[in-house]
Amino acid sequence: MAEINVAMIGYAFMGRAHSNAWRQAPHFFPGPLKPRLKVICGRRQEAAQQAADQLGWEEVETDWRRVVARPDIGIVDIVTPGDSHAEIAIAAAQAGKHVICEKPLANSLDEALAMLAAVKPAGVRHMVLFNYRRVPAMRLARQWIEAGRLGRLFHFRAQYLQDWIVDPQFPRVWRLDKTIAGSGALGDLGAHVVDICHYLTGRRVEKVSSLMATLIPERPLPDEPRRMAPVTVDDAALFIGRAGEMTAQFEVSRLAPGRKNCLTLEINGSQGSLRFNLERLNELEFYDRTQPEELQGWNNILVTDARHPFIPHWWPAGHILGYEHPFVHAMAEFLEAVAKGGEIHPDFADGAACNAVLDAVERSAASGAWTEVKAWAAAMQ
Amino acid sequence: MAEINVAMIGYAFMGRAHSNAWRQAPHFFPGPLKPRLKVICGRRQEAAQQAADQLGWEEVETDWRRVVARPDIGIVDIVTPGDSHAEIAIAAAQAGKHVICEKPLANSLDEALAMLAAVKPAGVRHMVLFNYRRVPAMRLARQWIEAGRLGRLFHFRAQYLQDWIVDPQFPRVWRLDKTIAGSGALGDLGAHVVDICHYLTGRRVEKVSSLMATLIPERPLPDEPRRMAPVTVDDAALFIGRAGEMTAQFEVSRLAPGRKNCLTLEINGSQGSLRFNLERLNELEFYDRTQPEELQGWNNILVTDARHPFIPHWWPAGHILGYEHPFVHAMAEFLEAVAKGGEIHPDFADGAACNAVLDAVERSAASGAWTEVKAWAAAMQ
Amino acid sequence: MAEINVAMIGYAFMGRAHSNAWRQAPHFFPGPLKPRLKVICGRRQEAAQQAADQLGWEEVETDWRRVVARPDIGIVDIVTPGDSHAEIAIAAAQAGKHVICEKPLANSLDEALAMLAAVKPAGVRHMVLFNYRRVPAMRLARQWIEAGRLGRLFHFRAQYLQDWIVDPQFPRVWRLDKTIAGSGALGDLGAHVVDICHYLTGRRVEKVSSLMATLIPERPLPDEPRRMAPVTVDDAALFIGRAGEMTAQFEVSRLAPGRKNCLTLEINGSQGSLRFNLERLNELEFYDRTQPEELQGWNNILVTDARHPFIPHWWPAGHILGYEHPFVHAMAEFLEAVAKGGEIHPDFADGAACNAVLDAVERSAASGAWTEVKAWAAAMQ
Amino acid sequence: MAEINVAMIGYAFMGRAHSNAWRQAPHFFPGPLKPRLKVICGRRQEAAQQAADQLGWEEVETDWRRVVARPDIGIVDIVTPGDSHAEIAIAAAQAGKHVICEKPLANSLDEALAMLAAVKPAGVRHMVLFNYRRVPAMRLARQWIEAGRLGRLFHFRAQYLQDWIVDPQFPRVWRLDKTIAGSGALGDLGAHVVDICHYLTGRRVEKVSSLMATLIPERPLPDEPRRMAPVTVDDAALFIGRAGEMTAQFEVSRLAPGRKNCLTLEINGSQGSLRFNLERLNELEFYDRTQPEELQGWNNILVTDARHPFIPHWWPAGHILGYEHPFVHAMAEFLEAVAKGGEIHPDFADGAACNAVLDAVERSAASGAWTEVKAWAAAMQ
Repeated sequence: MAEINVAMIGYAFMGRAHSNAWRQAPHFFPGPLKPRLKVICGRRQEAAQQAADQLGWEEVETDWRRVVARPDIGIVDIVTPGDSHAEIAIAAAQAGKHVICEKPLANSLDEALAMLAAVKPAGVRHMVLFNYRRVPAMRLARQWIEAGRLGRLFHFRAQYLQDWIVDPQFPRVWRLDKTIAGSGALGDLGAHVVDICHYLTGRRVEKVSSLMATLIPERPLPDEPRRMAPVTVDDAALFIGRAGEMTAQFEVSRLAPGRKNCLTLEINGSQGSLRFNLERLNELEFYDRTQPEELQGWNNILVTDARHPFIPHWWPAGHILGYEHPFVHAMAEFLEAVAKGGEIHPDFADGAACNAVLDAVERSAASGAWTEVKAWAAAMQ
Repeated sequence: MAEINVAMIGYAFMGRAHSNAWRQAPHFFPGPLKPRLKVICGRRQEAAQQAADQLGWEEVETDWRRVVARPDIGIVDIVTPGDSHAEIAIAAAQAGKHVICEKPLANSLDEALAMLAAVKPAGVRHMVLFNYRRVPAMRLARQWIEAGRLGRLFHFRAQYLQDWIVDPQFPRVWRLDKTIAGSGALGDLGAHVVDICHYLTGRRVEKVSSLMATLIPERPLPDEPRRMAPVTVDDAALFIGRAGEMTAQFEVSRLAPGRKNCLTLEINGSQGSLRFNLERLNELEFYDRTQPEELQGWNNILVTDARHPFIPHWWPAGHILGYEHPFVHAMAEFLEAVAKGGEIHPDFADGAACNAVLDAVERSAASGAWTEVKAWAAAMQ
Repeated sequence: MAEINVAMIGYAFMGRAHSNAWRQAPHFFPGPLKPRLKVICGRRQEAAQQAADQLGWEEVETDWRRVVARPDIGIVDIVTPGDSHAEIAIAAAQAGKHVICEKPLANSLDEALAMLAAVKPAGVRHMVLFNYRRVPAMRLARQWIEAGRLGRLFHFRAQYLQDWIVDPQFPRVWRLDKTIAGSGALGDLGAHVVDICHYLTGRRVEKVSSLMATLIPERPLPDEPRRMAPVTVDDAALFIGRAGEMTAQFEVSRLAPGRKNCLTLEINGSQGSLRFNLERLNELEFYDRTQPEELQGWNNILVTDARHPFIPHWWPAGHILGYEHPFVHAMAEFLEAVAKGGEIHPDFADGAACNAVLDAVERSAASGAWTEVKAWAAAMQ
Repeated sequence: MAEINVAMIGYAFMGRAHSNAWRQAPHFFPGPLKPRLKVICGRRQEAAQQAADQLGWEEVETDWRRVVARPDIGIVDIVTPGDSHAEIAIAAAQAGKHVICEKPLANSLDEALAMLAAVKPAGVRHMVLFNYRRVPAMRLARQWIEAGRLGRLFHFRAQYLQDWIVDPQFPRVWRLDKTIAGSGALGDLGAHVVDICHYLTGRRVEKVSSLMATLIPERPLPDEPRRMAPVTVDDAALFIGRAGEMTAQFEVSRLAPGRKNCLTLEINGSQGSLRFNLERLNELEFYDRTQPEELQGWNNILVTDARHPFIPHWWPAGHILGYEHPFVHAMAEFLEAVAKGGEIHPDFADGAACNAVLDAVERSAASGAWTEVKAWAAAMQ
């Protein structure tokens, strides 16, 4: 098995999830290319070294530009906050590296488009890590919808709700600062539900009307708890839209007590419906109108059978997977794409398509009007 | 126990539910006034007589004007389609009858206001039958929210989904004809979720942005299945709004396979959250942030204990109630209001407040703009 | 519609449920015979009169022997504690009355057999009111099992759990006194699960091993709370058994906090499984091994569609039924059997079959040995 | 961080789960000792080498006796079928190795006692890998029960159901052969539920009455599908028992369609109840009778908060764990016990206690009588 050296820029929560995925991939998805956790990059040497030790990386760098310039690196994996995605990804692509970038692809549509423009001529593989696409239940849902099991699609609805900032004393961390995070619940959670809508239904959101709310407008500074600072991002975002004839409804919030990491979605079509809840990610519910009427019900399928996507690589039926497994699937399939040269999704075009919707949501919230998603996305698809 | 004569105008689905409630009320909620099912009114004599026999009414009339004029009638209960509510209710009130009207109060805000204007000077009791207010779990939820258990309210969201017209061959019945029904899913289902939002949160929806969709634009005529007729009402309506600082999100549809009569709602506040599902109407889920952290969870309360609203009149704990019981609660409390002269809710002002929101939703759908709910409602409240 | 006069002996909890059923039956299940709530019988005149007023009975008697002797009575409905079932039912049958008896049929197998021996020559209709047989989901389950949907039956398991006597200060009411109640959880709850096993699977429990436990051995007297009296019945009973090759497992208890009226059951067969929970009695879960593998799941069917048993008489799909509805179904079908002369189940033979199992459970608990159910039952079936 | 060399004997399903745990432990639970996956042992060189490559072991051996004799090995981890546990574990202990053994500890009580007798004088750490003890929800449940949250314990009940051999054409693999597997569902699944009962309640099962059933008595041979061979183990086992005053009920089966790896349990006590379902292993349901009555319900706690056991080592709240995580917890705590010299549970005494119950179940099934669990277990505890 050939090896390829991976460099990861950043090392917080997502750094842990990506590192785990790089480590696990070859054990559960042995393929033509084996990833080597070569170098981790963080600005502070000591912290980066600690991360390297715990997460299993061989070397440490403190300047991402040096990482990108290293000839031994084959893949650059970006897990920094959104404001630095574009610069790093563009440089990496121009240096001929394959690039993985955490979601959302960028903090703005313009940056996302610049990233897309950079990777295409570079001929490198590129992926934005919308991890939920590779939850087995989500891939199964996609297959079924593509195969027509739901018939004509009428409605898509999704909520992605969390509660980690309900306490008004929760500090004003970087995720609540627009200059770094770009947006709040919208970019963090909304990006996921928009992408999963695109992925599952094969339809792009075309126009939206939205409402963005910052209900707790100031919070204590992390390092200086007696000083309050303004929250410059949204706590919650609601938007309704159309994707072709299909209606779409989205709500994301970080102020929903009891919703920890709760992405719920439902799709209604002329032949049936699907439901999913990320906090029970091993289950997919399917209502099938083609069954005899007395038998129609919500069929709760435990997506852990050998016939289900990804499962044969893991455990026997009924032995459930967790949050981190889809990252492993993503890395395994990325390595295969690198080895074989094929396409891989979600790529930067998919990432930009998502950014285009977020962009329209922000413009709609500002203008109070229905807003078209910028047309490039449909064209490039 | 004194008796009061009731007349019911109409006798379809809602007529069955109201009749049952009138019959059951004195057995489970014995009070100062006992209703006598005196007269049922329908245009076709034979059908009305059949309804009278099965539903337990003593007499039949075929002209509602004669009913309203009868001096022996104390209560007029209107279960006709929405286009005749105003005329009958106004006449009944002017004749000094206490009036119950099925929801929505009227097909338009103007009619609703005219009805309200008629009942006030008449000094009669008036109620619009938003039956879900008297589901025990809903009254309990209201009590808890009023008592501050959820703290400051952040979000309200509700879906009311059904699937009875998914089949494109389902005929174009009167509910799909705007001249009779006023609107489609919006007036039928949306009225319920707007009212329950008002009831539970104590906040009126103030502005909305909406989308109304007719996804199956024509259907066979009921009596002439080979001829198609246009569907002139909405199959689905989505709207987002504000009620004070609280965000609100609503979606109603009749094209959601597997959703039979499925009103689901969730309310998030600074201290906790509530969830409810009408297809499991005996249950209320409560997430309480004031509990010790390791104990916080979604507490599924079977609302059938003696401490819960209405329950002591029925069965022991765990013996669940069904769809029709809240109608019994409504009639019992209406009779008590008639006997004692007090207020009863939801009254015609509550009904008009709901109509005002539906009116704004329709205007927003037409204009594509955020739309203020007409100001009268807040003023009259 | 012809009328038949009904007399009800007793008027406590079950009296309310039966009265309601008699009142409702003709409105929702109009048939050849209309029941007239003629006379209610209770030992204390005043209390009986109050019950008559609230429950809708025309007359009051204080001696059941006089009721049974009245020539105008067609049906005698017995809702007294188990110790008087046999005497009343036998007298009623001998007087030519059709007889309905609350479950369990009797406090002992001998009494049950005597009752059965009395009704057979009398040529009257007889029914023991195992109400759960007529929950729509249960009748549907029975139809499916009969039709072979589960294939060969491997396992039956059921728990019936309540919690109303968890508090050790709960008084020693009659249900905790063996001389009146016969047994505790076993006769009250165990009777239901044994009967539902017989009904659903068509197999009789043939031998059992059991454990009966009285975990709170004394309690305050109802009328004299400072005096303790021994609890002479079981708080809980566990038994395992065979019914043909099928295994069967039963557990009943009144000491299960959070279980209010919670009968849960599951049946596993070679082709599929069924699950049911009485606290969600409108739902039936079906796992169908004949479906394509990737689609197999627990199909949660809301048993409220027009194709489902009893439903067309009630409300549209999704409008759920409650605890009391199966009683209405029972009375409606009993009236039809009386009118047409046919068989009706569960009859006294079914009741005796259940008593035979309870009898074996009690003997097994006393002896500590596996115990055969007495052979008569299989023979009479 | 010091290193310790681990050797694993066997490499099938459990070998994958253990290997993963050894690899993951130092990344998520960095501790004083770092495990080195030194040698894997399998009888067939080629297969063992393939396992080593995929699972991440450095060397391969084909004779476990050589492994046990190697001075560089610190921990021997046994994942072979039950018939070889005793011989290997005893030799390993006598060679001074710390020993981990898959469950059940042995195929017979005598072997288990011999193993226990061997590890004690050897002064080594010993653990039997009942992995479910380290599901966060199970540790939390144990803590709560120990702290008295359930009050006095009345009832324990558990089912462990699977369906992988429902098809009668499923071959007669080694797990269906008594000479290798010892027993069927009883040893495989029953061992888990007995151990979890002991763990959670702190009470040992003392006497049992049981029923063991082989419902599909012969199956095709794996390598010769046209020849049938007898199934010599149980497909299902049911047993009821006492543990002090607490009643206990257990059912295990491999013939339960739709139950993939479904261990469900419930414990009822005077102050509350707990429920758990392994297919939703991140959730724990708690009914708390000490709450105000109108608030009492089944509190579904997503056991993924920083306050919950093991969680701070993994992901933020709401990011669920899967089947394999408890193995990581077990290895991490075992390494700590080795480093610090303390006790660790479940040890071989816990394993033998479980075997003692299984032994009584088998004797009861054979004799048809209530059977005491052999007394040693209580004494040694």
